[in-house]
Amino acid sequence: MYHILSCDQFLRQDLTELFALTDEIRANTSRFGKALQGKIVATIFYEPSTRTRLSFEAAILRLGGSIISTENAKEMSSAIKGESLLDTIRVIDGYCDAIVLRHYDNRAAANAAEVSSVPIINAGSGSGEHPTQSLLDAYTIYKYKKNLDGLSVAVVGDLLFGRTVHSLVKLLALFRDITIYGLSREVLELPYEYVTYLRQKGVSYIPCRSFAEIPYDVDVIYQTRTQTERFENTDLQVEEFVIDEAVMKNFSPQTILMHPLPRRNEISPEVDQDKRAVYFQQSHYGMYVRMSLLYNILVGK
Amino acid sequence: MYHILSCDQFLRQDLTELFALTDEIRANTSRFGKALQGKIVATIFYEPSTRTRLSFEAAILRLGGSIISTENAKEMSSAIKGESLLDTIRVIDGYCDAIVLRHYDNRAAANAAEVSSVPIINAGSGSGEHPTQSLLDAYTIYKYKKNLDGLSVAVVGDLLFGRTVHSLVKLLALFRDITIYGLSREVLELPYEYVTYLRQKGVSYIPCRSFAEIPYDVDVIYQTRTQTERFENTDLQVEEFVIDEAVMKNFSPQTILMHPLPRRNEISPEVDQDKRAVYFQQSHYGMYVRMSLLYNILVGK
Amino acid sequence: MYHILSCDQFLRQDLTELFALTDEIRANTSRFGKALQGKIVATIFYEPSTRTRLSFEAAILRLGGSIISTENAKEMSSAIKGESLLDTIRVIDGYCDAIVLRHYDNRAAANAAEVSSVPIINAGSGSGEHPTQSLLDAYTIYKYKKNLDGLSVAVVGDLLFGRTVHSLVKLLALFRDITIYGLSREVLELPYEYVTYLRQKGVSYIPCRSFAEIPYDVDVIYQTRTQTERFENTDLQVEEFVIDEAVMKNFSPQTILMHPLPRRNEISPEVDQDKRAVYFQQSHYGMYVRMSLLYNILVGK
Repeated sequence: MYHILSCDQFLRQDLTELFALTDEIRANTSRFGKALQGKIVATIFYEPSTRTRLSFEAAILRLGGSIISTENAKEMSSAIKGESLLDTIRVIDGYCDAIVLRHYDNRAAANAAEVSSVPIINAGSGSGEHPTQSLLDAYTIYKYKKNLDGLSVAVVGDLLFGRTVHSLVKLLALFRDITIYGLSREVLELPYEYVTYLRQKGVSYIPCRSFAEIPYDVDVIYQTRTQTERFENTDLQVEEFVIDEAVMKNFSPQTILMHPLPRRNEISPEVDQDKRAVYFQQSHYGMYVRMSLLYNILVGK
Repeated sequence: MYHILSCDQFLRQDLTELFALTDEIRANTSRFGKALQGKIVATIFYEPSTRTRLSFEAAILRLGGSIISTENAKEMSSAIKGESLLDTIRVIDGYCDAIVLRHYDNRAAANAAEVSSVPIINAGSGSGEHPTQSLLDAYTIYKYKKNLDGLSVAVVGDLLFGRTVHSLVKLLALFRDITIYGLSREVLELPYEYVTYLRQKGVSYIPCRSFAEIPYDVDVIYQTRTQTERFENTDLQVEEFVIDEAVMKNFSPQTILMHPLPRRNEISPEVDQDKRAVYFQQSHYGMYVRMSLLYNILVGK
Repeated sequence: MYHILSCDQFLRQDLTELFALTDEIRANTSRFGKALQGKIVATIFYEPSTRTRLSFEAAILRLGGSIISTENAKEMSSAIKGESLLDTIRVIDGYCDAIVLRHYDNRAAANAAEVSSVPIINAGSGSGEHPTQSLLDAYTIYKYKKNLDGLSVAVVGDLLFGRTVHSLVKLLALFRDITIYGLSREVLELPYEYVTYLRQKGVSYIPCRSFAEIPYDVDVIYQTRTQTERFENTDLQVEEFVIDEAVMKNFSPQTILMHPLPRRNEISPEVDQDKRAVYFQQSHYGMYVRMSLLYNILVGK
C-alpha cells in the first residue's frame, strides 16, 4: 500500500489486515502515539469538507504526526495565479511526508499520484471515489457483524449519485454470499454498470421500491441522503424513504442502521435513541480506520 | 467544572481558585507544557473570531495539547448539506477530548453540551454569553487591584448590547461592596434586568451621562466599542465617550483603563502610552486564563 | 538578526552564514527537530498565500515548534470590527514567540516591527518586499553554482512589477563580478532606480529583447510570470518569452532554469524533464531556508 486512491485497489486480504490493525490501534491508541513523530501530513482541500478533514487531522495527531493544511487550495490554482494541480503537488510534496487530497475533479487523486514524491491519500474526488469512507463503512459492518461473508445489506435512497453506495457495494463484492437490496425511486436506481458488476462477482442484487420488500432480518440498512442539489426538478427533491421508529419496527433487533452523514431528514431524530442506530459510532470508527491507513502507509507493518 | 457555558455557573470560590491556578500557570508556564499531551481540542467556529480562536489555540499548545480547527463550521451545516449543530457535535466529539465552540446562536453552547460526550467550552454564543472573556476581565482586575471586594468600576459606552459588560457586572456582583458607574447615552443604557439583578445582589449601580459624574479615584474604567453595525440610524453611530489623555487627566494614577478589544476610536492611540492603559495586558492575560480553564477541565486539580 | 523585514538588511556575510546553516539543517534535519520545542509561531496572513504559508508552517513543525494561524486576518481589521494592524500585532504578540506576517500593504511588516514584542518575519508585503523568497532564490543559485561571485544571471519576463526579480538582483549585488541580463518587453523593463543601483554596486546590467542576446553559458535563467492582472490593456497580457525545449537548446548543460512559482505557461511543461529545470527543487529549498531563518531568530547561533 503506497497511495490510497480507490476502493478498487483493495483485495479481501487487505481489508482483513486493515481491520485487524484498526482493532489493535483502537485497543492501544496511546501505544501508537509516536508512530508518526517527526512526520508532516498535508491536508489539501480544494473544496471544504470540514468533517473529513477533521477526522483525518485527528487521526494524524493521535499518531503523533504534524499537519499543514488548507481548505483554500483553490486559491493556489486560481484564475489569477493559474497554477495546475500537478505543479501544486510537486511544490507541496517537498514540505511533507504524505498528502491527503480532496478535489472537485474525479481524476485529481490519480493524477496527483503520478507526479507526487510522497503518498497521496484520496479524501474524495468529485462525484467519484472516496475510498476511506467506504473502508470505514466496511469496518463498521465488520465490527457489528464479525464477518462480511454471507451478509445481506439494504442500500437506501440515492443509489444513482451516491458515491458512498457505489464504493461500499464494490467492497462488499469482495466477500462471499452477499445479498444487496437496492431501495430507491425509479429515477435514482443503482446505475446499470454497478448492477452488472455485482452480478459478475456473484452478488445477489435485488432492486426494491418499498421497505416492505426488505426482509425482517436484513443485517444492515445503509441509508443515504438524496443529493437534492443535483436536481432541477424540485418534485424529485422530496425524500420518500425516511426512516423513523415506525419503519425500524419492521426490522430485527440485530439489524444495524448506518448512514455516511451528514443526514438531513432521511433519518428521524427519534431513531438516534434506537440501539440499532450506529451512524455516530460509524463516524467515530472513521478516525481509527484513517489512523490505520496512515500507519500502514507511513510506518509499514 | 465540566462544561464552560455561562458566567452564571461560577461562584466566588471558583473565581478565587481559577485566579490562583492562573497565577501558578503564569509563573511556571513550562511546567505545564505537557499537561494536555496526547489530548486533542477542537476549535469549532461558526463565525470567524480570529483573536479568540488564536488565544484558545495558543493556550492549548502551551499546555502541550493538539488542535483540530475550523473557522468554516457553517459549511458543515450549510443549506446544501443541511446538518444540525447537534449532529455535528456528535460527530466531532468522537475525534477530540474537548470542543471550543463559537456560534451565532445564543443557545448553541448549552444545546451542544446536552449531546456532547466531551466538555464544551463556550467561546461566544451570538449576542449572549462569552464567559471566558468575562473571566479574563475579572482576572485582570484582580491582578491590578489584588481584591475584588470593595471596588468601584465604571463601564462605558454600549451598555445595551455589549455582552462583555453584561457578563462582567454579573461576575462583579459575586463580590462584596461593589459600586458600578454606567456611563452611556440614554439609548444605550444597561438593560433594566441587569440593573435589577445588580441591586438585588447589593451592588450600587449609578447611571451617568458624562465622565464628570465618575469619581476621580474610580478603580477601573471599562471602555467598550459601540456596536454601530446594530444601528440603522447613522446618527446613533457617533461615539460620544471617547477616552483621550484629556479624559484620563480626570482620574487617579491608580485607576486602570480596560477594553475587551478590538477598539476603533473610542480610545485614542495616545492613551496607549499611559501606564493606566492595561488593555493589551488584559488580552495577554486571556491566554493564561484559558490555559487555566482547559487545565481545570481536562486535567483536574 | 531579530526581525526579517527586507532583503536590504542582509550583508554578504549574513548570506554566507545563512547558507551554511541551511546546509547543516538539510544534512541533519532530525537533529534540529526539537529546536523550537515549546515555542509558538503565528502565521498571520491578510491575503491568502497558501504556498508560502505551508512552506513556513512545515519549517516551523520540522524544528519542533507549534503554530497558530489564520489566512483570514482581514476579518480582524474588517469594516465592522475596525481594528488596526498595530493593535492586532499587540494582541497576537502576547500569544506567540514570533509572527510570520503577510499583508497587502507594502509598509505592513516594517510598521508591525515597530510595535511588536516578538520578532516579525515578512512573508510578503504588498507589491514590495518578500525577503524569504529572494533568500531561497540566492540559496538555490549557491547550491548549483557553489559561489555567487562571478556569476551571470538572466532575469526574464516581468522586470517592472516582479518583486522577486527586484529583491534577487539586490542580493546578487552583494557579490563580486556579477553580470545581469534583463530580458523583457520594453514596457516591462527593470525600473530605472534598480538599474542605477546595480551599476553603483559594480554590477554589469544588460537589457535584452530576445533570448539570442543572452550568452550560451549564462549561469542562471530566472524566468517570471507576467502579472497580467495588473494590465488593463489585454494586448500586453500575451507572454512573449515562453521557455520551451527549443529555447533551452540555446543554453549550456550547466545553465540552470529557475522560477519563483506559480507558473502559468511561461515555462512549457516539457521543460520539467530537463535536468537544468530546478524550480521545484528551488521551492523545496525554501522550506530549509525558512528553517534556517527561524532557527537563527528564535534559537540563535
